[in-house]
Amino acid sequence: MSDDAIRSIFEPNSIAVVGASRNPEKVGYLILKNLLESGFKGKLFPINPKVDEILSLRTYPSLEDVSEDIDLAVIVVPGTIVPNVLKECGKKGIRSVIVISGGFRESGKEGEELEKLVIKIINETGIRLVGPNCIGVDNPYIGMSMWVGVKKKGPISIVSQSGLVGTAFQCWAEKESIGISKCISLGNQVDVNEIDILRYFEEDPHTKTIAMYLEGIQNGREFMKVASDVSKKKPIIALKGGRTEKGIKAAKSHTRSLSGKSEIFEAAINQSGILSTSSLEELYIYSKALSFLPLPKGRRVLIITSSGGAGIMAADTVDRLNLELPSISDDVEKRLRQVLPSYCVFDNPFDVTTTTVESFQLVMEENLEDENIDAFLPIFADPLPRAAEAVKTVAKKTNKPIVVCYVGGGKVEDIEKEKMHEAGIPVFSTPEKAVTALYALVRYNELQSKNV
Amino acid sequence: MSDDAIRSIFEPNSIAVVGASRNPEKVGYLILKNLLESGFKGKLFPINPKVDEILSLRTYPSLEDVSEDIDLAVIVVPGTIVPNVLKECGKKGIRSVIVISGGFRESGKEGEELEKLVIKIINETGIRLVGPNCIGVDNPYIGMSMWVGVKKKGPISIVSQSGLVGTAFQCWAEKESIGISKCISLGNQVDVNEIDILRYFEEDPHTKTIAMYLEGIQNGREFMKVASDVSKKKPIIALKGGRTEKGIKAAKSHTRSLSGKSEIFEAAINQSGILSTSSLEELYIYSKALSFLPLPKGRRVLIITSSGGAGIMAADTVDRLNLELPSISDDVEKRLRQVLPSYCVFDNPFDVTTTTVESFQLVMEENLEDENIDAFLPIFADPLPRAAEAVKTVAKKTNKPIVVCYVGGGKVEDIEKEKMHEAGIPVFSTPEKAVTALYALVRYNELQSKNV
Repeated sequence: MSDDAIRSIFEPNSIAVVGASRNPEKVGYLILKNLLESGFKGKLFPINPKVDEILSLRTYPSLEDVSEDIDLAVIVVPGTIVPNVLKECGKKGIRSVIVISGGFRESGKEGEELEKLVIKIINETGIRLVGPNCIGVDNPYIGMSMWVGVKKKGPISIVSQSGLVGTAFQCWAEKESIGISKCISLGNQVDVNEIDILRYFEEDPHTKTIAMYLEGIQNGREFMKVASDVSKKKPIIALKGGRTEKGIKAAKSHTRSLSGKSEIFEAAINQSGILSTSSLEELYIYSKALSFLPLPKGRRVLIITSSGGAGIMAADTVDRLNLELPSISDDVEKRLRQVLPSYCVFDNPFDVTTTTVESFQLVMEENLEDENIDAFLPIFADPLPRAAEAVKTVAKKTNKPIVVCYVGGGKVEDIEKEKMHEAGIPVFSTPEKAVTALYALVRYNELQSKNV
Repeated sequence: MSDDAIRSIFEPNSIAVVGASRNPEKVGYLILKNLLESGFKGKLFPINPKVDEILSLRTYPSLEDVSEDIDLAVIVVPGTIVPNVLKECGKKGIRSVIVISGGFRESGKEGEELEKLVIKIINETGIRLVGPNCIGVDNPYIGMSMWVGVKKKGPISIVSQSGLVGTAFQCWAEKESIGISKCISLGNQVDVNEIDILRYFEEDPHTKTIAMYLEGIQNGREFMKVASDVSKKKPIIALKGGRTEKGIKAAKSHTRSLSGKSEIFEAAINQSGILSTSSLEELYIYSKALSFLPLPKGRRVLIITSSGGAGIMAADTVDRLNLELPSISDDVEKRLRQVLPSYCVFDNPFDVTTTTVESFQLVMEENLEDENIDAFLPIFADPLPRAAEAVKTVAKKTNKPIVVCYVGGGKVEDIEKEKMHEAGIPVFSTPEKAVTALYALVRYNELQSKNV
C-alpha cells in the first residue's frame, strides 16, 4: 500500500511554491511558470513576502497566510532557510514536501549539519520529503511539469537519482507524442526513496513501465524484494551510473553514496526482474518498447523492408543480440509469389523492393498465423504514405509485436511516425534501435520466467 | 583528377527526367516534385510522350525533342526500356546518366541479360552511369534533392551502396540544421563506383567529411589506394553492412556482391585511413563530429556539467572508450574557487551545480591554456538560455574541440541547439553520444598518424 503523503506528492490538488520569484533566471520563477504552462489543474499558492503578485498570481507572505488546505509544498528558498519552512509546513499540516534547494550534504560539512536538522524535523512532523537538491516531480495527468513544462500524457514513469534522466525522457517523449506518466528526481534522498516510489508506481493506473537511473542503493534487500514484486506486474528498466572506474569516481562526488561494483549490482538487479541497460538512449528505447508493445512468445522475427541496406543492418543487429530470423513457410512463399513481383526477395529479411505500403501489409498478414514467427519488424525507408494505416490494420489482427522502424522518408516520415505514436505504436529511427526494442521485449520475458 | 561526366552527375546545369509522371504514387512524379521543391537552379526537362505538362512544367515526347543541351539524364522508365533510352542519350550527346529503374541483376536471369546490354551500350557511347536500381544523386548547393526534397547545405558527403543511408542522413541533417554537401546511392554499380566518387569528393570544396555505406568492394587494391590518399585530406567514415553471419547472408541477396569477412574488411579499411563504425547512428555521429570540430592533440577531456548524473554517464563512456579525464591544475582550481560557489565539484567531471551559463564559460576559459586538456565537453542538462552564446565565445578563443551535449532543456534546448548548429558547433543529445563524437576525432588522429 502506498502512503497517502506519497500520493499527494504526485497528485496534489494544491501546491505552494515557497520561494516563488519574479526573476526569470531564478528556479522559483521557472517552476511557477512551468506549472502554469503545463496547465496545473489545482490551486497554486506562490509564497513570497516581498511582492504581491508573480505571473498574475496573488502571492502570500507565508504558508500560514494561506487559509485553504495545501497538499504539497515545493521549497526553493536557500538551504539555510529550509528548516524553518519545514517547521511552518508542520504547523500548517502539510505532509508532502519537495525540497528543490541545494546546500546540504552535497556541499560539505555545514550542509551535512543542515541535512541532519532537516531529517530531525521531518521525523518530528511526519512530513514525507523528496530531496533536498532535486528538480521536482511531474505528472502530466494533472498538468504538473516543474522543470521543463511539458504536457503529453503517456505510459512511462521515471524515478531517478539524477534530474537529467527525467528531463531528457520528458523532452523526448513530448517531441515524439509519446508522453510520460510520472517523473521524480530523488536528489539527496533523505526520506523518500526508490522503494516508496516503486510501491506508488505499482498501483498508479497510468504507469505501464518504470525507468530508473541509479547510482547506488540504500536498503538493498528491501529494494530487491519490492522490485521483484513490482516487475512481475510492470517492467522495470534501469541504467546504473558508475559502471566503470572513472564513472564510479564521478558518482562518489555526486551523491556521495556508495556506488557498488557493476557486476554485483547487475546480478542483484537481474535477480529482481529489473532489465539493466547501458546508455541513456537504451533506457529510453527499452521503456518505449515495453510500454507499448505486446510481448512476443520467442525471439524469432520477420523483417520486412524496401531497403536492402536497412534489412542488412537489422540482420547484423539480430545476430549480435542473438535473436533469430526464421524462414517463411513454403506455403506462404507460394501465396506471396502469386501476388508480389518476382524480383522481391522472398526471404528473411523479406525485401519488398517496390515501395508500396500494400506489400508490407500483405507480407505481415500472410505470416500472422505462422507459429515460427514471434514478431514483425517492418522497416520503412522511403517516403511511404499510409504506412501508419497499414501497421494499425495489421496490429488489430494480431497479438504479436510489430516493431516499426521508419527512417529516411522526409516529411512523410514525420507525418506517419506521429500517426503511429498517437495510435500507441512505437516507431524507432534506425534498424539497430528497432531490433534493440524487440530485444527488450525478449529479455523481459526471459527475466520474468526466472522471477517467480 | 575527376571526370567531367562525374562532375555533371553532381553539378548539372540541366536535367532531363525520362519517365516523368503525373501520378503522385510514381517515382517519376516524386523526383520531379522534389527537384522543384528543393529549388533546382538549372533547367528541368520532363520527358513523357503522353502528356503535355507535369507540375506546371512543359514536357517533351523524347530526349531528341529537347533542343537545348542536357547535362544529366535521370531515367525512371521500366527496366526493359532503359537500353533504348540510353541509346537516345548517346545520340543526344548526354554523357551523365542516373538509372533509378530496377529490374536488372537484382531481379534474376532476365535482368542479368538486360544489365549486360546496358554495360555494352555505355561502353559504346562513353556514358558514365550511376545505378541502375538506385535512388539518385543530391546536391543542395544547386537545389538538387531527388528522393526526399531537402534543402540544407552542409559539409557531409555520402556515398552508399544502399539508398537508406543517404536519405537518413539528409533527413537528420535537415532537421538538425546541419545539412549535407553531396549524396549518391550507387545501386547495382555497373559503372560509377566508390573510387570515382571518392576522387570527386576529394576535390569538391563543399565536402568536408565523407560517409560511406558498403557491403562489398570491387577493385579492393585501387579502392584502398584512393581511400588512403583522400582520407589524408578529408575524413572518410564507413559502415559495413554484413558484419555478422546473418548480415552477410542478407547482403548476398541484396547486392549479390561478395560481402567479405568482417575482420579482413575492418583491417583493410583501417589501413586506408578509413574510420569504421558499427551502426547507422554512429556513422552519423562520427560524420557530424569530424565535419565541424577541430582535432584535439590527445585524448584528455574536461567534462563540465550542471548534472551530476550526466557527468557520471559521460565518465562511464570516457572509461569505456579509453579516453582520459585529467585533473584541473592547482592554479586553475584556486582561481575558480575564488569566484564559484564552494559546493561546486572542482574535479573532472567539473560540476558547476548551479545552472548558469557563466559558470560553464568560466570553467572552460580558465582551462584554455592548460596543456593537459585537449578537449572540452560541456553538458547542458537544464533549460539554460544563452548556452550557444557562451560556447561560441569560448570556441573563438581556442583551437581545442568543444563537444557540446545538450539534453533535457525542453524548448530552451531546441533554441540553443539550433543556434549552435547554425554557427557550425555540433550538439549531441546524450552524454554517451557526445563522448563518442570526441572519440571519433581521437581515432581519426591516430589512424592518420599511421597513414603516411
